[in-house]
Amino acid sequence: MPVLTTENINQAIINASYEVRGRLVARAGEIEKEGFENRPYKEIIYCNIGNPQNLGQQPISFVRSVLACLTQPKLLESNVFPKDVIERAKEIKKELPCGNLGGYSHSQGLRFIRQHVAEFIEKRDGIKTDPDNIYLGNGASDCISKVLNVLIRDKKDGIMVHIPQYPLYSAAITLFGGSRVDVNMDFKKGFALTVEELERAYKDAVSKNITPRALVVINPGNPTGCVLKYDNMKEIVQFCMDKNLVLLADEVYQSNIYKENPFISFKKVVHDMKLEDKLELFSFHSVSKGFLGECGRRGGYMEISPAINKDVKAQIYKLFSISLCANLDGQIVVDVMVKPPKEGDESYEEYKKERDAILASLKRRSETLVEAFNSIEGVQCNPAEGAMYCYPRITISQKAVDEAKKRNLKPDTFYCLELLESTGICCVPGSGFGNELESDNSFYFRTTFLPAEDKLKEAAEKFRTFHSEFMKKYPMQ
Amino acid sequence: MPVLTTENINQAIINASYEVRGRLVARAGEIEKEGFENRPYKEIIYCNIGNPQNLGQQPISFVRSVLACLTQPKLLESNVFPKDVIERAKEIKKELPCGNLGGYSHSQGLRFIRQHVAEFIEKRDGIKTDPDNIYLGNGASDCISKVLNVLIRDKKDGIMVHIPQYPLYSAAITLFGGSRVDVNMDFKKGFALTVEELERAYKDAVSKNITPRALVVINPGNPTGCVLKYDNMKEIVQFCMDKNLVLLADEVYQSNIYKENPFISFKKVVHDMKLEDKLELFSFHSVSKGFLGECGRRGGYMEISPAINKDVKAQIYKLFSISLCANLDGQIVVDVMVKPPKEGDESYEEYKKERDAILASLKRRSETLVEAFNSIEGVQCNPAEGAMYCYPRITISQKAVDEAKKRNLKPDTFYCLELLESTGICCVPGSGFGNELESDNSFYFRTTFLPAEDKLKEAAEKFRTFHSEFMKKYPMQ
Repeated sequence: MPVLTTENINQAIINASYEVRGRLVARAGEIEKEGFENRPYKEIIYCNIGNPQNLGQQPISFVRSVLACLTQPKLLESNVFPKDVIERAKEIKKELPCGNLGGYSHSQGLRFIRQHVAEFIEKRDGIKTDPDNIYLGNGASDCISKVLNVLIRDKKDGIMVHIPQYPLYSAAITLFGGSRVDVNMDFKKGFALTVEELERAYKDAVSKNITPRALVVINPGNPTGCVLKYDNMKEIVQFCMDKNLVLLADEVYQSNIYKENPFISFKKVVHDMKLEDKLELFSFHSVSKGFLGECGRRGGYMEISPAINKDVKAQIYKLFSISLCANLDGQIVVDVMVKPPKEGDESYEEYKKERDAILASLKRRSETLVEAFNSIEGVQCNPAEGAMYCYPRITISQKAVDEAKKRNLKPDTFYCLELLESTGICCVPGSGFGNELESDNSFYFRTTFLPAEDKLKEAAEKFRTFHSEFMKKYPMQ
Repeated sequence: MPVLTTENINQAIINASYEVRGRLVARAGEIEKEGFENRPYKEIIYCNIGNPQNLGQQPISFVRSVLACLTQPKLLESNVFPKDVIERAKEIKKELPCGNLGGYSHSQGLRFIRQHVAEFIEKRDGIKTDPDNIYLGNGASDCISKVLNVLIRDKKDGIMVHIPQYPLYSAAITLFGGSRVDVNMDFKKGFALTVEELERAYKDAVSKNITPRALVVINPGNPTGCVLKYDNMKEIVQFCMDKNLVLLADEVYQSNIYKENPFISFKKVVHDMKLEDKLELFSFHSVSKGFLGECGRRGGYMEISPAINKDVKAQIYKLFSISLCANLDGQIVVDVMVKPPKEGDESYEEYKKERDAILASLKRRSETLVEAFNSIEGVQCNPAEGAMYCYPRITISQKAVDEAKKRNLKPDTFYCLELLESTGICCVPGSGFGNELESDNSFYFRTTFLPAEDKLKEAAEKFRTFHSEFMKKYPMQ
């Protein structure tokens, strides 16, 4: 009898679920192993995760060149790179202990990088920012997870999250033993976060003896792709003040906005409301998204607001120190993200060209996919205003729901598995984000629009054919 | 009133302690800020942490060159690097999705790197190894922390750790809400881990209603620098079998051995005892130590033994997937660590020269420091057989102990703070590793021997003077 069995290990891990890398991806891996001989497709199209470079997006050259020079400093003496790359790498090198990228850094991250992050935020929001309030992590996930670890004591502590949500939140809340308090966003209202629903969710939690301590808001939205309106953000901030809640603002998609309205940070809204010394705000950003797409670097940061108690800050520092520091390559990429080439620099034109091409293509792809979804009967999709995802709503027949039940699957999982088997397209069922089947037999799934443009168009056509065949197989009557 | 105060956040974080980056380092930082005008030294000598490159150790060129080529692939077309660097980088590139280092990888780490890790272990131990049992993490700390998260349900679950221990273990056990079960190692027995003491600790735990589930062994030892004997390792394995314990073997210093006896892994011992299908063993290794010293990369791996239950393995995978994947740069450095240049390769001579110089210098430095300690009255030190640390035992007077009490400090903290104030040398008090004052007024501290050789000699002299003045100030009578 082994010491460790699923019955006697930490049950919080058993109970946690992370569908972005869950059942669908596991099945996709099996199909790859089985081979594509007897299938009408030759590869899996991974739309399950916002991982742009694995789908062909090219890295921003300036980022990689600076990092390469710091990795192998003898490149500083070569003539391979433009002058401003060399200068920038030398500037950074001067700030590194012994000029070397090989050591553990300060547990909050290298001080000069935090300074640059503060300047970036100042420029973005027009608000003075303290580098001591910046913490660099192994991606935003790492920072988010640590903050939830600080917040949650036991199952009486509630973390309010909007549904649909990103499963890192639900998984981390489960791991730390807290209670998730669901706030439903309404598809028909473009996934706005209404005060009525916030109030309902809060009251419901309290009636169950749960004390909400924090509200999580992902904006631009994951998985919805929707962007909150300024007035709605004000309401949300006021709600947090009224209910004595910490606000966690996940803003990793702040550079991925495809509509006219620019990104507004919660920091800015809080400042406009003159609440920055009162509202305890944690904001998160990452190098994995935007137009960098440097997921593999695991780089990101969080900012904490001046309202956070100093002694609590010391405890957050201690928690960061236990894992020593974020990886230095990720830290350097954060530095280049917040301090890109300026107009007039030798690399600026190339940088601008690469950046604009990626963002324009993402915008086109989001439109292609949304249009395709909305042209299919039984499929509806809000416009993707931001982020990297569409979150269509699919209505199926009772026959299909019954078939799913027969197979012991949730209807959305059944549908996504069928889609995968028939087309090789790998998406994530909405239940992975907290959405269950609605009363009219509707469900959701999340798909990225990251495949290259021709592949995406092809995938949209495949999806159309699949859906029509699925509906023939399980008709409405 | 803020939402978050030290009274109402997760108390496990308040209770956790990580002295390697604790009080002494904080004071050192203050001294740096104050400036060195009125001090008899011009800089802090950081001996608190095994962070070789921040003290001047140069990276292994081959490692950095391969990584630079993958970071900026246009270097593959340049003539800056030797042929085998380019070949190796191209081989790796072929294995990367879209040839790019920018994506999230499989949550266990890139498959081909796990294959290379398996081959490395096979070569080291002569035992067949399955790449599916390898997990790459953001450093060994990350893997260790995840395993403890799986093991610990509540405070009835005991994790046996030898004292002195590395404070990651105590901190993580506290964070996850388990109980630390202390097994004392005896300075006079060269910090061996005796079966008598293991039995005593086990019984003591059981009498307190704690069930030990695992034993942690760091070998080569941190903070002791001692290396376990083969027969002692066999006893330890047998003890785990008898008591139904999981064994966590922290072997991150496996390349840092300065005596004749080569490194023996617990995997090898378990295999020799024909227990590999029975003993649940987790082994850890890292790129931060050895002769690479790539701490900033946060690269490492763990191997789990075939005895680990398959369903438990799936849960470990899920836990890894929630943080997506280890950073790719760290993964690549693991790859180069386990598959270095071979004899005959263009880079081999340089690689060998760099490696041998670092290891020879570490050996010399360990001897310098141990000799210095043992030549001072009231200071004793075991030979540093491995790792990067000395752990001397200091005997002070009752007067000094009383003075510490007056200042509300532990005697070892008082002594280390005085050492820091007088000399700029920053060490970590033994209480940070679990050792309290012994009955003859003796305590320990940990110091690395990582400063460059001339600086280390100078530091040893400074220490000698400090200690003699300290003893004059607080004499034995």
